[in-house]
Amino acid sequence: MSRKSFASDNYAGALVEVVRAVADANVGDAVAYGDDQWTESAIRQLTAAFGAGAVFLVFTGTAANVLALSLLLRPFEAVVCAESSHLNLDEGGAPERLLGCKLLAVATPDGKLTPELIEPRLTARGDEHRVQPRLIAITQVTEVGTCYSLAELAALRQFCDSEGLALFIDGARLANAAAYLGCELSDLAAVADVLTFGGTKNGALAAEAVIVMREELSADAPYLRKQQMQLASKMRFVAAQFNALLEDKLWLRNAQHANAMAQRLAAAVADDPDIQVCYPVQSNAVFAALSPGRVAALGREWTFSTANTTDRIVRWMTAFDTSAEDVDAFAAAIRATR
Amino acid sequence: MSRKSFASDNYAGALVEVVRAVADANVGDAVAYGDDQWTESAIRQLTAAFGAGAVFLVFTGTAANVLALSLLLRPFEAVVCAESSHLNLDEGGAPERLLGCKLLAVATPDGKLTPELIEPRLTARGDEHRVQPRLIAITQVTEVGTCYSLAELAALRQFCDSEGLALFIDGARLANAAAYLGCELSDLAAVADVLTFGGTKNGALAAEAVIVMREELSADAPYLRKQQMQLASKMRFVAAQFNALLEDKLWLRNAQHANAMAQRLAAAVADDPDIQVCYPVQSNAVFAALSPGRVAALGREWTFSTANTTDRIVRWMTAFDTSAEDVDAFAAAIRATR
Amino acid sequence: MSRKSFASDNYAGALVEVVRAVADANVGDAVAYGDDQWTESAIRQLTAAFGAGAVFLVFTGTAANVLALSLLLRPFEAVVCAESSHLNLDEGGAPERLLGCKLLAVATPDGKLTPELIEPRLTARGDEHRVQPRLIAITQVTEVGTCYSLAELAALRQFCDSEGLALFIDGARLANAAAYLGCELSDLAAVADVLTFGGTKNGALAAEAVIVMREELSADAPYLRKQQMQLASKMRFVAAQFNALLEDKLWLRNAQHANAMAQRLAAAVADDPDIQVCYPVQSNAVFAALSPGRVAALGREWTFSTANTTDRIVRWMTAFDTSAEDVDAFAAAIRATR
Amino acid sequence: MSRKSFASDNYAGALVEVVRAVADANVGDAVAYGDDQWTESAIRQLTAAFGAGAVFLVFTGTAANVLALSLLLRPFEAVVCAESSHLNLDEGGAPERLLGCKLLAVATPDGKLTPELIEPRLTARGDEHRVQPRLIAITQVTEVGTCYSLAELAALRQFCDSEGLALFIDGARLANAAAYLGCELSDLAAVADVLTFGGTKNGALAAEAVIVMREELSADAPYLRKQQMQLASKMRFVAAQFNALLEDKLWLRNAQHANAMAQRLAAAVADDPDIQVCYPVQSNAVFAALSPGRVAALGREWTFSTANTTDRIVRWMTAFDTSAEDVDAFAAAIRATR
Repeated sequence: MSRKSFASDNYAGALVEVVRAVADANVGDAVAYGDDQWTESAIRQLTAAFGAGAVFLVFTGTAANVLALSLLLRPFEAVVCAESSHLNLDEGGAPERLLGCKLLAVATPDGKLTPELIEPRLTARGDEHRVQPRLIAITQVTEVGTCYSLAELAALRQFCDSEGLALFIDGARLANAAAYLGCELSDLAAVADVLTFGGTKNGALAAEAVIVMREELSADAPYLRKQQMQLASKMRFVAAQFNALLEDKLWLRNAQHANAMAQRLAAAVADDPDIQVCYPVQSNAVFAALSPGRVAALGREWTFSTANTTDRIVRWMTAFDTSAEDVDAFAAAIRATR
Repeated sequence: MSRKSFASDNYAGALVEVVRAVADANVGDAVAYGDDQWTESAIRQLTAAFGAGAVFLVFTGTAANVLALSLLLRPFEAVVCAESSHLNLDEGGAPERLLGCKLLAVATPDGKLTPELIEPRLTARGDEHRVQPRLIAITQVTEVGTCYSLAELAALRQFCDSEGLALFIDGARLANAAAYLGCELSDLAAVADVLTFGGTKNGALAAEAVIVMREELSADAPYLRKQQMQLASKMRFVAAQFNALLEDKLWLRNAQHANAMAQRLAAAVADDPDIQVCYPVQSNAVFAALSPGRVAALGREWTFSTANTTDRIVRWMTAFDTSAEDVDAFAAAIRATR
Repeated sequence: MSRKSFASDNYAGALVEVVRAVADANVGDAVAYGDDQWTESAIRQLTAAFGAGAVFLVFTGTAANVLALSLLLRPFEAVVCAESSHLNLDEGGAPERLLGCKLLAVATPDGKLTPELIEPRLTARGDEHRVQPRLIAITQVTEVGTCYSLAELAALRQFCDSEGLALFIDGARLANAAAYLGCELSDLAAVADVLTFGGTKNGALAAEAVIVMREELSADAPYLRKQQMQLASKMRFVAAQFNALLEDKLWLRNAQHANAMAQRLAAAVADDPDIQVCYPVQSNAVFAALSPGRVAALGREWTFSTANTTDRIVRWMTAFDTSAEDVDAFAAAIRATR
Repeated sequence: MSRKSFASDNYAGALVEVVRAVADANVGDAVAYGDDQWTESAIRQLTAAFGAGAVFLVFTGTAANVLALSLLLRPFEAVVCAESSHLNLDEGGAPERLLGCKLLAVATPDGKLTPELIEPRLTARGDEHRVQPRLIAITQVTEVGTCYSLAELAALRQFCDSEGLALFIDGARLANAAAYLGCELSDLAAVADVLTFGGTKNGALAAEAVIVMREELSADAPYLRKQQMQLASKMRFVAAQFNALLEDKLWLRNAQHANAMAQRLAAAVADDPDIQVCYPVQSNAVFAALSPGRVAALGREWTFSTANTTDRIVRWMTAFDTSAEDVDAFAAAIRATR
């Protein structure tokens, strides 16, 4: 691609540091399946950063989500999640197919669940004819680029406690939330029973982590990860990617940069009266509404996503490697479609 | 590890060429999920090499096996496989759990199925109380290091045709079989409906391919791969590994070398009257029976596998990066335990 | 219970004719699993009545629905159904758990799907990240007691054809629909690929039928029924129940009577200004809104259902054995709560 | 059928007492799904007879087995069972498909597991690549008509305790074992974590019970039974069948009679030098080896089963309604084939 893509942060390549870490780990033999120094280091650092009880590495975000859910659900228990969530829309039905669980999808104004939105789905508890809501699944950053504040997270946790529910965070872009909120990963994780931490969208090749906050939930995880086809034989090469991201908080700098680029883009279109930014820009995505004609014109030379429900809404996404020049050129192109 | 391990070919690192190919693919943006030039190249080359109808890349051998099976089985259909097969023993129950299929395990003298061994399991066909045998699953190279000859493969195919069965090959070490038999990958694949081609044990970081020989079987595969949590977002980095392996048949040279090292090791212990090599050495593994005392002594400084059923049987495995010096040093250590 | 219940048609017992048919079938030996004269007769009659390709008997409505769906769906295909449908709400998550399919639930004003309501869910077709809508599942009579007209059914069929979708009808109360619409069972079934025909709510002990309209869909059904734990060993006693219901269209008289009793009840409360009947009364259920105080007062001596979302909405349901006197007494009790 | 069948005890009809109990339960309304007096009575009596913690009624033996297993297994846990067991051979793959569990089938000389036979399958515990053996599943009476003695059961329980395993008994013909052993149902059940108690083969229409010995295992069972499509809406008619069987231990008299008829048959052929009775006759089945010619001749006028592996082995089975005259006529026919 000659021009920087604004389609998705997984159109980006990988960080040089990540590729170098993989190459550096390629030194002779290592015990397979994770009993090696790179994995030990990654697990230790991730455990410390999250205040976690246990950590398990996998290859894809879908796999991280499914493994996490499998630690938390009995066969008749259901997940309350946002209608717009990746879990509900973009896993190809993996939760239903592989775990057999029902998702209770809730429409949200901004991709975020609240106690008020969840409560109406907590019906028929104790009724054997109905699936039993057991797990609240949120995405941080959400699929529309918004972040739960720490206060919102605390309120959800309190609600879960009072209702006897577990809380899961899909953290495919958790780094961007930490960057936006200016908090530690452990601050974000503290409210969860289990969460995921995405490496791939942050600059890894293919590396995701399942962070188990309550250690007693982790006993089954090794077996389930294997059964779910996610146990890497040469685990060190997955772990090395996380080691690179964790060194001097490289993950944070990546996320801060990507977020800043999204802010720069949002600012550049702010004075365009025919463009409405749809959601607060709190991460590395700008959702905007503009005329189909402008979308089409812009799409001739630039790549970006159109949302599902209408041609008018577009998603412009930045990545760790989006430069200010990329943004400025893209913004100029947007202006040129007026 | 200071000494070369003889435990498994997945204790080895990755080929320098594979790591370099990953680094070389890290040039700016690429469309996610496989719509990129590296994936296009890998698919094209693999399709050509196998004479295949379609090819799908995944991360792990377990995943390749499960995806392959999911293309071939209805919910009540069963798989006939060797008792010693990875599918039966070492997938953590993934076929049963994720596909719901029953495996009909057959004891074999040498890890190989034959029509004579399979036939007794083809009972109760048409009986609604019984699972219906539908798929013969073989491993090439087998888990005990033996290879099916082309004649044996042809006999199995003929048997499958006459019995209305499909044939699947778990090819986690298919390269070693091609090297041993001196044939093309397409010769090995011609008998199969679907097979896998392992990159990881051959020197990749984590890359496996599902090779669909009959194109009409491939329509569901994109959905199933995603649902089975194996759709890489940055697919180019998986594909690049195969591109490196395929260039000038690097995969073949790796396999030839590993096989030769196993032969060297077998030759070195051939005159040891207290060591019995258990199976013909036809790939990169030597299974040997020796006294528990010698196993223990050898295990003090070298790593290798002890088989499941008894302490007396050991598996010594070579890899692309096992040197003649490694073998000689190990052989000397074995002799020293006499 | 001293007073007739208006809670559900499955609070009713069984028809004397059904119990007698079971007793009459209890004459010596019969081949197990359905190779008997009673099953042959039931299948033959049901096939004729529906113009069906094949018929399979099971024990419960949930099982009938699941077996039907299993004939129509691949693992990544989804079902569009009404949010209020039994399939979505009241199967304890069986479709997700046992088949692994995702249900795409649609809010409806009256329990009925229309092409307009379905269309927005037919997104992302061909997108491997998304489940693929494949099956439209409707309930006839719906869970709120309404019936699809033959014209509405024809419109749905046409829509399914144009969109490449299959159509399934949950017919747990199909008899009541035939009675209301004054049509043949075959008229209702003609639009469907597969449907169910409920015996239990019509007066059987426990007998449901899966009606497969397109014979080519039925090849897997014997295996799937067994695997789904629904193959009766003494099948004749399930079949005998249907034989009783089918004799001189007893099923129709039951349904006509139950429907008439619901009409009688609706008429009796029509002039009560504080009671709103919520849906057209087109079967054997009356949904009504009345004050919580009246609900509570009525509930002291009579049994009926309160709907899920609010205490104000009640369901009053009649059965084959609800007498005019029962209705009049209940109506008087309702009036007495004013 | 003009002649009594010796094919299976489920070719028999139902006991007059069972049919009458169903008819007697058909008196007006009853709360659906088991909140009725008949169910209360059946549960109470079964709980008392077994010394159980909880009891759940279902329709089929396959369903009883699957529900039982689902109370005891995590997704990666495996079942050790006899190769000849119904669970392994005759459930159409339901355990694998519906629960996702792997069965570790063990060849047995007489259908019975022993600690010695089980132990070799208890490998790789703690190894994440392998399913983890968790449950020993035995059948009492076994599929070849033999019974575990109380001492054998005690030894299995002790073995399970020492190995951290659970014990399940498939009791489709448990009544025949109690009759043979002259013990109480609670004596048989005391060793199990969960077991089933078959009504159908004992003279019911279709009624099976899951007996949960440890009450803490029962919390999920209501949800799982519903999800597994086995929650009867008119539960009273299932319960009534058990009430009939339990009254004055009718179940025991049925089993004693059927067992006696098998003994009578075995005795009648004992002096035939060309017939070998294959297993001790400890229930209501006689397995015998005789020449194919005699099997064919006998099969012209009488119905019985031929075992799976060879035409020479036949199963002759008696039922509650097999009369001494039936046996004598059949024995005469056998003799006539000499």
